[in-house]
Amino acid sequence: MTGVRIAGTGHTHFGQFPERTGRDLFAEASDGAIEDAGVERGEIEELLYGNFMGEVAEDQGHQGPLMAEVAGVNAAATRYESACASSGVAVREAVRNVRNGEVDVVLVGGAERMTNLGTAGATKALSIAADELFEIRAGMNFPGAYALMANAYFEEYGGSREDLAHIAVKNHANALENDHAQLQREITVEDVLEAPPIAEPLGLYDACPISDGASAMVLVSDEYAEANGLDAPIAITGTGQGGDRMALADREYLARTPAAADASSEAYADAGIGADDVDVAEVHDCFTIAEVLAIESIGFYEPGEGIAAARNGETTADGDRPVNLSGGLKAKGHPVGATGVSQVIEIASLLTGEHINSDAVPDAEVGLVHNAGGTVASTTVHVMEVVE
Amino acid sequence: MTGVRIAGTGHTHFGQFPERTGRDLFAEASDGAIEDAGVERGEIEELLYGNFMGEVAEDQGHQGPLMAEVAGVNAAATRYESACASSGVAVREAVRNVRNGEVDVVLVGGAERMTNLGTAGATKALSIAADELFEIRAGMNFPGAYALMANAYFEEYGGSREDLAHIAVKNHANALENDHAQLQREITVEDVLEAPPIAEPLGLYDACPISDGASAMVLVSDEYAEANGLDAPIAITGTGQGGDRMALADREYLARTPAAADASSEAYADAGIGADDVDVAEVHDCFTIAEVLAIESIGFYEPGEGIAAARNGETTADGDRPVNLSGGLKAKGHPVGATGVSQVIEIASLLTGEHINSDAVPDAEVGLVHNAGGTVASTTVHVMEVVE
Repeated sequence: MTGVRIAGTGHTHFGQFPERTGRDLFAEASDGAIEDAGVERGEIEELLYGNFMGEVAEDQGHQGPLMAEVAGVNAAATRYESACASSGVAVREAVRNVRNGEVDVVLVGGAERMTNLGTAGATKALSIAADELFEIRAGMNFPGAYALMANAYFEEYGGSREDLAHIAVKNHANALENDHAQLQREITVEDVLEAPPIAEPLGLYDACPISDGASAMVLVSDEYAEANGLDAPIAITGTGQGGDRMALADREYLARTPAAADASSEAYADAGIGADDVDVAEVHDCFTIAEVLAIESIGFYEPGEGIAAARNGETTADGDRPVNLSGGLKAKGHPVGATGVSQVIEIASLLTGEHINSDAVPDAEVGLVHNAGGTVASTTVHVMEVVE
Repeated sequence: MTGVRIAGTGHTHFGQFPERTGRDLFAEASDGAIEDAGVERGEIEELLYGNFMGEVAEDQGHQGPLMAEVAGVNAAATRYESACASSGVAVREAVRNVRNGEVDVVLVGGAERMTNLGTAGATKALSIAADELFEIRAGMNFPGAYALMANAYFEEYGGSREDLAHIAVKNHANALENDHAQLQREITVEDVLEAPPIAEPLGLYDACPISDGASAMVLVSDEYAEANGLDAPIAITGTGQGGDRMALADREYLARTPAAADASSEAYADAGIGADDVDVAEVHDCFTIAEVLAIESIGFYEPGEGIAAARNGETTADGDRPVNLSGGLKAKGHPVGATGVSQVIEIASLLTGEHINSDAVPDAEVGLVHNAGGTVASTTVHVMEVVE
C-alpha cells in the first residue's frame, strides 16, 4: 500500500454564472489542477468525477467521459453521485485506487451548474436528494428538513437561532478574502436574525447560496511523486464513508448524524489518529445547524455541545477549533458536485500555508474534511496530513 | 491481493412494470442475492449501486443510501452512473475494493424504472447519455446514433440489414426459456426486415426494448468464502474500463469502439488470459450493430469480420463462439442500471451449468461480460472463471 499525495489543484470562483455550462466550469478547474500538478495529460489513468443534478439542470448524464474529454484526458472516467457528497465519494474511491496500486495518477473533481434553474428551480432540483416517495411528495424540501433537525436539536440539547447565527457570521468573515468564495462580505448576528425566514427556525442567512462552480485535483502515489520530483507535500491519509436511512421519519434521532460519525471513526482509524489530532477542519455547513451536527459527529464536541462552541466563538479563526476557514458552504458557496473536492483543496492550502487564512493555523499539520449528502444519509470524511 | 467470488445473485424478471418503483424492483433483487449468498445483512460492508435515469424517471437521486435501506443493509452506499454501463462500473469498483482488502463482503446491483415514461419519454430520457449540447440539440437520439455507426460499418466493411437481422433472431431464440427475459418469443429474419424502420438501416427489431428491472449480487473475498463455507465457485478474475469522446462527431472512426477495446485489453491482462480463452460472452447489444462492434472490440473477431460471424451463425448457441446466450439486451431487455450486473449473473449461471442455455457450453470455464455506456463512450469488461 502506498501513500496518496495531492499533486495539483484547480478551482473556479464559486458564484452565479448561469451562462456557463458544467463542462465550461470543469474545463477551467481541471486545466488548473493539471497545470499545477505538472503532469502530462497522458499520465492520467482515470477521472473520478462528482456531479449531482446534471440530468435536471443540463439534461446531461454520462458526465464521466464527457468531462474526461473536456479535461483533455483520454482515460476511463466515472461519474459518482451521492447528492451533496458526490465528489466526496469520488475522492474516497480515488484514494483507495491509488493506495492499492490500481493506478498511480488520477484526476478527481466535480462541477455543478445550478443558478440557471433559478432559486426555486434549484431548490426543487436539490429535493431529489431526499426521499421522493415519502418526503418530497409530502411537501418536504431541504430548508424544511434541516429546520426539523434544528428544532429536534434545540429540543434535545437547547440552543437558539442566535447561537446558529454566530456560525453564519463566522463563515462569512472567513470567506472575506477567499478568492473562491461567492459571498465575500461581512454580516452581523442581527443581519442573520432579521433575514427572511425560510423554514423556522432557519432564515435565509442560515442557508448556503445556490452556486455554480467546479473543482479538481490530481492525486498521485508516493512513488510517482518521488520518481517525478513532484511538489506534493500533502497526503490523504484516512478515508471513511457512512450511510443512514434516507427519510428523516425512518431515523431514530434527528439531532445526530450517525452516517458522519461512522465515516469519521473509519477515517480516524484509517489514518491512525483521533479527533484531538486534527488542527483544522472543513465541514458540510449547507445550513448553520449542519455545522453544529458536523462538528459533533467528527468528535470535536460531544453531542449537544457543538452549539455552545459556536456561541462561544471556539470555532472561529482565532478559536481553539477553527472550522470552515474557507467560509464553508455557507459563504464560499455550494455548487453541489464541486464541494467535496473543494473542501479538500481548502484544507490542502491551509496546511501548506498558502491559504488566505493560513495565519490562523500556523502550525497545522493535520486537517479533516466532512462532506455530507442529503440530510446526512451519506457522508465521507477524509484526513489529510503534511508529509514533507 | 485476494480473489473475488460471487456468493449469491438475485434478479427480477425484466419487462414492463410501470407500476413498480425502482426501490420495489431492487428490494426483490437484493433480497434474492442476499438469501442466495447465505450471508447476514450485517456482514455487508458496502452497497455499490448502478442507476442511470432515476432523476428523470422517478425524481429520485441519491439512490445509494435509499437502496441500502431498501436492501436492509446498514452500510456505506454509493450510486454509480455511467449511462448504460452504470452497474458495470459498480462491479469494477466492487472487484477492486474486495481484492485489495478494503472490504470482504459487498452488495452490488442496479435497477431502472423506465416504462412509466412511455417509449417516447424513455427514448428522450436515454438521450441524456449522449452529448446534450452537440448531439441531442441537433436532433440526435440513440437509434439515430447507432444507425450512423451501422452505416459507417457497412461503408467501411460491407454488410447489410439482413446480416444484422440474424443477431436479433439469435438473441430472441436464446431468450425463449430465460425467465429473466422480457421478449420470450421467436422471430424470423423476415420479421426483422419487415419491422418499422426506426433509423435507417435499423428497424424496430434491431433495438432492445424499454424495460423495468433490477439485479443484484453479493461479492466476497476468497478468504471470506472459505472461512464461511460459502458455495461460490465463480470468480471475477479480470476487470477493465475504457473511455472515448462523448460526441460521435469527435471520434476518428464510427465503425469501431476503442473504449471497449481498451477495456477488454485491460481485463484480459488483469486475468492473464486472451480472447481465445473465453468460452462464452455476454455483450452489450442495445442494437444489433452494437453486438457486431462488441464482438470485434473484445477480440473475438478482427474489425470488419464480426458481421460475417453473425451471418454465418458462428455466435449462435451451437456456434463456435456463443454470444448472448441470455438473449442479450435485445431480447432479455435493458433496464439500464440493472444490465451490467445482470450480464455477470447470466455468465455465472452459464459457467456453473445452472443456466437454461448451459447445455450449449457444457465445458465452459471462462466467461466475459462487456457493458457499454452511451455510444460506447464508456465501457467495462469483466472476465469470470470457474475456480472450484
